[in-house]
Amino acid sequence: MERHFDEQLQGLKSHLMKMSAMAEVMIADAVRSVVERDAAAISPVCEREELVNQMQVEIDEVCLKLIALNQPAAGDLRFILGAVKTNSELERLADEAVNIVQKADHLLRSEPLKPFEIIPEMAVIARGMVRDSLRAFVNRNAELAREVLVRDDRLDALKAKIAEALSVFMAQAPDAVPRALDLLLISRYLERIGDHATNIAENAIFVVEGVDVRHHADQKRLVKRPFAHVEKSGT
Amino acid sequence: MERHFDEQLQGLKSHLMKMSAMAEVMIADAVRSVVERDAAAISPVCEREELVNQMQVEIDEVCLKLIALNQPAAGDLRFILGAVKTNSELERLADEAVNIVQKADHLLRSEPLKPFEIIPEMAVIARGMVRDSLRAFVNRNAELAREVLVRDDRLDALKAKIAEALSVFMAQAPDAVPRALDLLLISRYLERIGDHATNIAENAIFVVEGVDVRHHADQKRLVKRPFAHVEKSGT
Repeated sequence: MERHFDEQLQGLKSHLMKMSAMAEVMIADAVRSVVERDAAAISPVCEREELVNQMQVEIDEVCLKLIALNQPAAGDLRFILGAVKTNSELERLADEAVNIVQKADHLLRSEPLKPFEIIPEMAVIARGMVRDSLRAFVNRNAELAREVLVRDDRLDALKAKIAEALSVFMAQAPDAVPRALDLLLISRYLERIGDHATNIAENAIFVVEGVDVRHHADQKRLVKRPFAHVEKSGT
Repeated sequence: MERHFDEQLQGLKSHLMKMSAMAEVMIADAVRSVVERDAAAISPVCEREELVNQMQVEIDEVCLKLIALNQPAAGDLRFILGAVKTNSELERLADEAVNIVQKADHLLRSEPLKPFEIIPEMAVIARGMVRDSLRAFVNRNAELAREVLVRDDRLDALKAKIAEALSVFMAQAPDAVPRALDLLLISRYLERIGDHATNIAENAIFVVEGVDVRHHADQKRLVKRPFAHVEKSGT
């Protein structure tokens, strides 16, 4: 016997929230491995990625069944299609944590570079964006979703700042080029985590308002954008 | 009066093929702007991006209506959910073309670096992957989809090769660091186009076989993988 539709929908939300919580831990561990040069933080990230991958497959199946076995009303259908997309975003942002530990593994074999405080700052913003974009999606909270969109500008600005600093640094210290490139890429992975969270927040607004804000920058933000976007989708 | 379901499904496929063809032109123009230092190739890429964005919104609505107004059988439902995901992939790979012309715009303001033949080679592979992954998806051709997956390994290997070459080059020519970084990022954008095509190919296999190949690397390829993946999802 099929459970009631609302219960199934609640189950879908719980799945997404678990996946998001796991991704957040992965990001925290990945950044700790870089910043604190903690090699022990690396392998848990890779182990959790396996779990996240399984979750993604399960959530897609849950969405498929929810539609096939019920005839969801337009609003719920929109939510379920949004969940399919959100599911992909969560899996990919967890992949970025794996990318970070791969660079960490490389960095830990050399002498430390001078500390770049920007990396931990970016990590805090990115994790918060993941948490809040998911909360906005499952709770259909467009206001919170719009707050997340604004935070992405800060992340982009920090990425540009560290890229500039590292570019200057590389020109002065040729021996440090490979390590500086690793750090540069780590900053980009964090920025892409923010982009995935942005996509989730846009899904939330789409579900709540039936408005597609993805390509209408003018409608996108309620507050003035403090930083201009430099690149598309977290490059 | 609603058109017959099969006609609507055919309409969805045409939309996706048009979007894919446009993305291919964008990639070709973007790479020409870099390789031939052709500034005139830049603005058409940005103009086409607007069209691609509109197409994405339209295709999502087509998918929503297809489900809401019909009660598609399991196989068709799987295809439509795959189309929602494929739609996102196409929009994002078109974004990568925009990222490339932004770097081109920067590069064209300086003296040319020594030529890197790898960039045009990567572009040819990436475009072919986009075309064939989309063909595999709309024609539900799992064999072609698997061929696309294999080609991604070649793209990853070229990305690693150019990264190594540019890293050495930057250490020897500090003045060229900013330009070399631009080229490095362009190679990564091309490699990410390949990743988006890979995701489309995986959607195709999922639709055809009901098998999720995303996280089963052992089942993923029919032929031996000539290169090992270095990073996750096109970093």
